[in-house]
Amino acid sequence: MGLVVQKYGGSSVADAEGIKRVAKRIVDAKKNGHQVVVVVSAMGDTTDELIDLAEQVSPMPAGREFDMLLTAGERISMALLAMAIKNLGHEAQSFTGSQAGVITDSVHNKARIIDVTPGRIRTALDEGNIAIVAGFQGVSADSKDITTLGRGGSDTTAVALAAALDAEVCEIYTDVDGVFTADPRVVKKAKKIDWINSEDMLELAASGSKVLLHRCVEYARRYNIPIHVRSSFSGLPGTWVSNENPQGDEPVEHAIISGVAHDVSEAKITVVGVPDKPGEAAAIFRAIADAEINIDMIVQNVSAASTGLTDISFTLPKAEGHKAIDALEKAKGTIGFESLRYDDQIGKISLVGAGMKTNPGVTASFFQALSDAGVNIELISTSEIRISVVTRQDDVNEAVRAVHTAFGLDSDSGDEAVVYGGTGR
Amino acid sequence: MGLVVQKYGGSSVADAEGIKRVAKRIVDAKKNGHQVVVVVSAMGDTTDELIDLAEQVSPMPAGREFDMLLTAGERISMALLAMAIKNLGHEAQSFTGSQAGVITDSVHNKARIIDVTPGRIRTALDEGNIAIVAGFQGVSADSKDITTLGRGGSDTTAVALAAALDAEVCEIYTDVDGVFTADPRVVKKAKKIDWINSEDMLELAASGSKVLLHRCVEYARRYNIPIHVRSSFSGLPGTWVSNENPQGDEPVEHAIISGVAHDVSEAKITVVGVPDKPGEAAAIFRAIADAEINIDMIVQNVSAASTGLTDISFTLPKAEGHKAIDALEKAKGTIGFESLRYDDQIGKISLVGAGMKTNPGVTASFFQALSDAGVNIELISTSEIRISVVTRQDDVNEAVRAVHTAFGLDSDSGDEAVVYGGTGR
Repeated sequence: MGLVVQKYGGSSVADAEGIKRVAKRIVDAKKNGHQVVVVVSAMGDTTDELIDLAEQVSPMPAGREFDMLLTAGERISMALLAMAIKNLGHEAQSFTGSQAGVITDSVHNKARIIDVTPGRIRTALDEGNIAIVAGFQGVSADSKDITTLGRGGSDTTAVALAAALDAEVCEIYTDVDGVFTADPRVVKKAKKIDWINSEDMLELAASGSKVLLHRCVEYARRYNIPIHVRSSFSGLPGTWVSNENPQGDEPVEHAIISGVAHDVSEAKITVVGVPDKPGEAAAIFRAIADAEINIDMIVQNVSAASTGLTDISFTLPKAEGHKAIDALEKAKGTIGFESLRYDDQIGKISLVGAGMKTNPGVTASFFQALSDAGVNIELISTSEIRISVVTRQDDVNEAVRAVHTAFGLDSDSGDEAVVYGGTGR
Repeated sequence: MGLVVQKYGGSSVADAEGIKRVAKRIVDAKKNGHQVVVVVSAMGDTTDELIDLAEQVSPMPAGREFDMLLTAGERISMALLAMAIKNLGHEAQSFTGSQAGVITDSVHNKARIIDVTPGRIRTALDEGNIAIVAGFQGVSADSKDITTLGRGGSDTTAVALAAALDAEVCEIYTDVDGVFTADPRVVKKAKKIDWINSEDMLELAASGSKVLLHRCVEYARRYNIPIHVRSSFSGLPGTWVSNENPQGDEPVEHAIISGVAHDVSEAKITVVGVPDKPGEAAAIFRAIADAEINIDMIVQNVSAASTGLTDISFTLPKAEGHKAIDALEKAKGTIGFESLRYDDQIGKISLVGAGMKTNPGVTASFFQALSDAGVNIELISTSEIRISVVTRQDDVNEAVRAVHTAFGLDSDSGDEAVVYGGTGR
């Protein structure tokens, strides 16, 4: 039996009862002969409460101090979890990100892990302890200041520790039973996926699936760490995410659809009347990049020959919409375009699966399903293993259900997927 | 203008408004040309809430994890305070005990400071920052684990940093205007003391005055750091505690009474029927010491010649009463005594002042005042600069007022002392 890294989100440790339940689960893994490293998020709403306090004392809290503040959250949950485990008669020690050797760059609030030196964790394990590590946090290599890793930070901590400690598996405990073929809140007949390869999971995460974030899957893929996403409430086997199928299936030539993802958190900006000549698109996206805005889909329509002008549309997180409009307006003189259109009533539906590109029937069936459901398509974008469309936001749920059914993903059983509600960080 | 260390207790930073008020006061000190180091406690009830959580997950939380948990409290307050200062346009950086170089032994929950290496604080100050330091916490020299300093820990952090940084003064901000000649809640006419020497302050602290703890005064006395105890609410000058009178007064031969302290937190144990022969008292107090119980007054009555037996009484914190009784019962066979009596309805009144021993009139007046007030004396104990008696707990307030009046300590003005309520840690 080897080393297991387990990660528990904030909803799993929301109160004393949750912490005690999680402690039992951890002790079970230890009793089964594993060395156990646990990464834990802050309890329930702690982070939101700390952010609220920060806003009360300062409208623009400084990054360094904001990180110092937020990391108090995991400090509380990890110490309590270690106490609860010791109360069950097993040895446990808690470690901050810094003590666990999570070394980051110096970008406060969204630091990147640049190294993991888990010497103290190794020692604690060798002495028979269960090691509890604060998720979401690290220490800057340059300034020795405390940093936080931003969204999905605790999952990334878990995968990074699993890689550094050469763990057998990184178990991500959450409030759902695993990764589903579609969001179970939208598609009642969504099925839990037993195994999905890392590339497909990356596309699902990029397309709006919220169970695992892109960043954590990418890290696991690079270091070849299998992830097991499962529920801390039900204890059932969940979804395995890995580079190789643990069942050892041979690759097949026909398309294997993994699931349908959707996303209603994006907006669309259309730059109208752009001169159709080299360098125009570059100028537009340079302005966007300089404002540090991440964009998603980009589509350029065919130029109308009579005017020599074209339209360029792209999607981006709604929260960044204002900043993007400002950046483009400022650069209007040098770029040269007629006007900007902003639309935050869009939704995106994506079909993800291996072998899609070499099976033209997939694309056709996808569009047919949307058409049959009366859903109008506004933008289209494809990759090797994904096809995405933008529609009206009101049409998204209906579109997801139609596509899910059309590709035979609906569950045969009458059972509906269970959703426990709430998400950790 | 030199370096000032300021310490703010939990009641001063109980909420966002409190933090902003304290931030203004700190910035004022900076504007006056000082380098400023601030030691801060956890906000209001944070520590109690964390202790409550710990008790929910484990009836006997482990020391290491308990310290990890509690130190989250100062992490929150110090980060918020730094943000609030930056919001006023001044540079500030917060530091944990570990980052500030507060090195301790490895005794969790009541660690002792063994060294202070404030390199990062010096750098922050030299770069023009106000340095905010978490009180009450340090890092163990041996294990590198986080420790807490126990009761009065934040005051001790402040004095220790003041000593290590060679500060001009250590300002202890609290919710009262300073040290009074008696507890203003008991004696309405108690007067604020402008200056008191360290030895008298030590005796007052040991005798029940709660404004400053013995430990912090002792540290300041050893390193010759003047303490200025003052209110974070009123902003008035408070009480100076130092080895030398800042007004440069000459020492005088007559007794100078500093104040009257009282304490109702102790209990009395009487060991009845102890054989009056060498080694008996030693055996009793060895048993107590082995149980790690601190005792206060010890009195042995004259042996009754007819029996060859004597009684030994001592006082100790009520919280330790059970432990002491257990320890003595276990050692009964080897010590040899008839029985134990336990009494937790006692109170102690102490008169503190220089030159007392050489002025026999002081003791006489003290006993006379108690007698006039109808207060019965059960135990008596004296030192160079203090005389203490134990009475019934019900008589304590009346006794304190009587002594305060008898020694001319009552305020001439009709003003009553202001008490803001609440105490920090």
